[in-house]
Amino acid sequence: MLTPVLDRIDADLPAALDRLQTFLRIPSISTDPAYAEKCADAAAWLATDLQTLGIEASPRPTEGHPMVVGHGGDGGPHLLFYGHYDVQPVDPLELWSHDPFEPIIEDDMIRGRGASDDKGQLMTFVEACRAWVAVHGALPCQLTLLFEGEEESGSPFLIPFLKDNADELRADLALICDTTMFNKETPAITTMLRGLLGEEIVVTGPSRDLHSGAYGGAAANPARILCKILASLHDETGRVTVPGFYDSVPELDPALAEQWSKLDFNADAFLSEVGLSHPAGEQDRTALEMIWSRPTCEINGLNSGYTGDGFKTVLPSQATAKVSFRLVGQQDPHVIRTAFRQMVTEALPPDCTAAFHDHGASPASIMSTSDPAFEAARQALSDEWPNEAAFVGAGGSIPIAGYFRDYLGMDALLAGFARNDNQIHSPNEKYDMDSFHKGIRSWARILSALSQKKAS
Amino acid sequence: MLTPVLDRIDADLPAALDRLQTFLRIPSISTDPAYAEKCADAAAWLATDLQTLGIEASPRPTEGHPMVVGHGGDGGPHLLFYGHYDVQPVDPLELWSHDPFEPIIEDDMIRGRGASDDKGQLMTFVEACRAWVAVHGALPCQLTLLFEGEEESGSPFLIPFLKDNADELRADLALICDTTMFNKETPAITTMLRGLLGEEIVVTGPSRDLHSGAYGGAAANPARILCKILASLHDETGRVTVPGFYDSVPELDPALAEQWSKLDFNADAFLSEVGLSHPAGEQDRTALEMIWSRPTCEINGLNSGYTGDGFKTVLPSQATAKVSFRLVGQQDPHVIRTAFRQMVTEALPPDCTAAFHDHGASPASIMSTSDPAFEAARQALSDEWPNEAAFVGAGGSIPIAGYFRDYLGMDALLAGFARNDNQIHSPNEKYDMDSFHKGIRSWARILSALSQKKAS
Repeated sequence: MLTPVLDRIDADLPAALDRLQTFLRIPSISTDPAYAEKCADAAAWLATDLQTLGIEASPRPTEGHPMVVGHGGDGGPHLLFYGHYDVQPVDPLELWSHDPFEPIIEDDMIRGRGASDDKGQLMTFVEACRAWVAVHGALPCQLTLLFEGEEESGSPFLIPFLKDNADELRADLALICDTTMFNKETPAITTMLRGLLGEEIVVTGPSRDLHSGAYGGAAANPARILCKILASLHDETGRVTVPGFYDSVPELDPALAEQWSKLDFNADAFLSEVGLSHPAGEQDRTALEMIWSRPTCEINGLNSGYTGDGFKTVLPSQATAKVSFRLVGQQDPHVIRTAFRQMVTEALPPDCTAAFHDHGASPASIMSTSDPAFEAARQALSDEWPNEAAFVGAGGSIPIAGYFRDYLGMDALLAGFARNDNQIHSPNEKYDMDSFHKGIRSWARILSALSQKKAS
Repeated sequence: MLTPVLDRIDADLPAALDRLQTFLRIPSISTDPAYAEKCADAAAWLATDLQTLGIEASPRPTEGHPMVVGHGGDGGPHLLFYGHYDVQPVDPLELWSHDPFEPIIEDDMIRGRGASDDKGQLMTFVEACRAWVAVHGALPCQLTLLFEGEEESGSPFLIPFLKDNADELRADLALICDTTMFNKETPAITTMLRGLLGEEIVVTGPSRDLHSGAYGGAAANPARILCKILASLHDETGRVTVPGFYDSVPELDPALAEQWSKLDFNADAFLSEVGLSHPAGEQDRTALEMIWSRPTCEINGLNSGYTGDGFKTVLPSQATAKVSFRLVGQQDPHVIRTAFRQMVTEALPPDCTAAFHDHGASPASIMSTSDPAFEAARQALSDEWPNEAAFVGAGGSIPIAGYFRDYLGMDALLAGFARNDNQIHSPNEKYDMDSFHKGIRSWARILSALSQKKAS
């Protein structure tokens, strides 16, 4: 059953690349309201493409950007595949070597915004389905496909959608393609994901921007206050100082620690690739712990006063920061949000106020690998790639994995083919040809393995 | 001699307002290279206007925006009048109630960018000259006029221009109209001006923007480092911590302290007008000292990572701050710049570098009020306004006053008619009709007084 599908995938690669490029040309930036129509276009394109595979698919309106839901195939296990068609903003645009929405294929790489995160990744699954249908005339088992358009915006309408459509969406297992390989020869199934809490603080001092000569010295400067508060979020050892922050942070399971210690992880190389040499987090932790199993607090954006060319001697009325927390173990994002806001509010001097904006909250997800599907998928991946597949952690948040457990009662198997150097969320995002081609083949193998497993 | 000139000023006010509005319509923003041509337009407009008064005037090219120099009149003292035709940027544009470059006259106010700082102020002098010429057929004494186009950009080419043209520009006394009244009924001659040091810091961590999930915890975050450094610039009592910062800061002269204590200054009202209630500077100083005679350090701009709508989980490669210091007494801006840069550099952790950009440096200016011209001008102002004129300090920097002493060997008499609520450097800048009208009359009185004084 599998070999002709893999052959078909190899033969159809040029056409698959054409389809991906068409998809990448749609600037579906979900965080910027100016691109709402483009998000709808991307949803429509996906639904239409799924229909060509005999999948009954359509965009589903939400209060935000539409979801795309499709159903096809029958028999075997019922699998739900999830991906997201929205992409990150592209600024700073001047750092791109080409138009982010005019994809380029060169040097065995597909270049463009979304090439990796997540359009390229989700299309590996769609193309595997297309090959299966082309060879066998049908999908290998019962499949539901769910594509979201607001993953990069904190998924504000995902939970209500899952709740409202739980009967339609519930399956035996979820498959998610939004993660990385461990390295370019070692595929990975991610079983541990950090959660994410996004906050925006706006500190206001004077009721309007002031002249720093006329008022400087006497008037409270909100930029100075904001910096002081942000500087207080970590102690000298790199630990986060929000009260109670570490209360629900477990020590790493010894078995997993043992497995991780055997991985060929070179912290120096990991950092030097981005111009760094010192792990900057908690000083008593390894770099792998810092990015996989320890919580963080990061400043993602700062804005106040005059930021253009030259100089303006303004004493600003407001100062804004976007701050995010990566969460692990049983850390409750709502408890931490409350503690964070209280800490900020208590640090305000007279004459300064703070407003807070909620930019999403999801707890960490830890998968149960005792489900035999996990081992079957791990073996399927190992068959495709040079090295044995590994169960790993991931620093990024994929809240959907937790939602699937909480609202649909199913586990999620996260297998992705991105690499750490894909520059996702950065200028010059790319996806390697190997990630795309062998990614499609990997999903064909996993679908084959899971269908056989359930049938046996 | 004076009365018919004052009458002429009153009669010509509508025409003077028309001329000012024409001048205000030219968006001569000097800090933004996109407006270079508009700065040249403003210089040309001024030169042409001066020519109609029989003043030999022309724009003079510099490496930046042109200067305008004019000469006219003879006899009496030789006075040099200085003003600047460039204006501040207008962002945030959305906070303006109207187009900043389409001036409006309403409620006895002239509204628009530059209405006060400094186009409206400099035109008070030009209009006084116009009235004098209209009535007497000639200027009251020998006058040189110097208008600069880069005052809001730190005057990068002013010193070389003064040096290169010292023989042409040297006069007995400089007159400068870029300051405020003490209050709307009390005119002021500013005899104490703070200096200004402008610095921009760019902290770089990773070589590119990173995904805060993939790298967060392990990679140095330059926004966090910058906040920590900026937070360390003041101690708990509000004092600036740059080493040696207070070494050349004198205590206030007891005589001046006595005079200031008699001024009708209401710190509560001063702050409450901008939504504040607590003097935020050094806690052992009065609010008037904080803004007139004590040095400061202010953050004027902050920028890092993603600052648009929504949220982007970026770990930024760079973080930037614009920082300025107001200087007093004998503080040397170059010594303080060196100490500041060294303090920042020493605070950088591994993997972070800082680049610095120089945005101007000028020491404080303290005028010698023993020159009888100061008392003559103070009396002339007292004749025009309800209250007696005062010798005061000013928080803002007018480096030109120091340059005139250093490079042309002359003192500067600073008399201005702006008010503290003119919103200079902010949205909705305005200049009161009284400031303009009685400002013109004030210059006529001062010109009369100084001419008579020298002639007697």
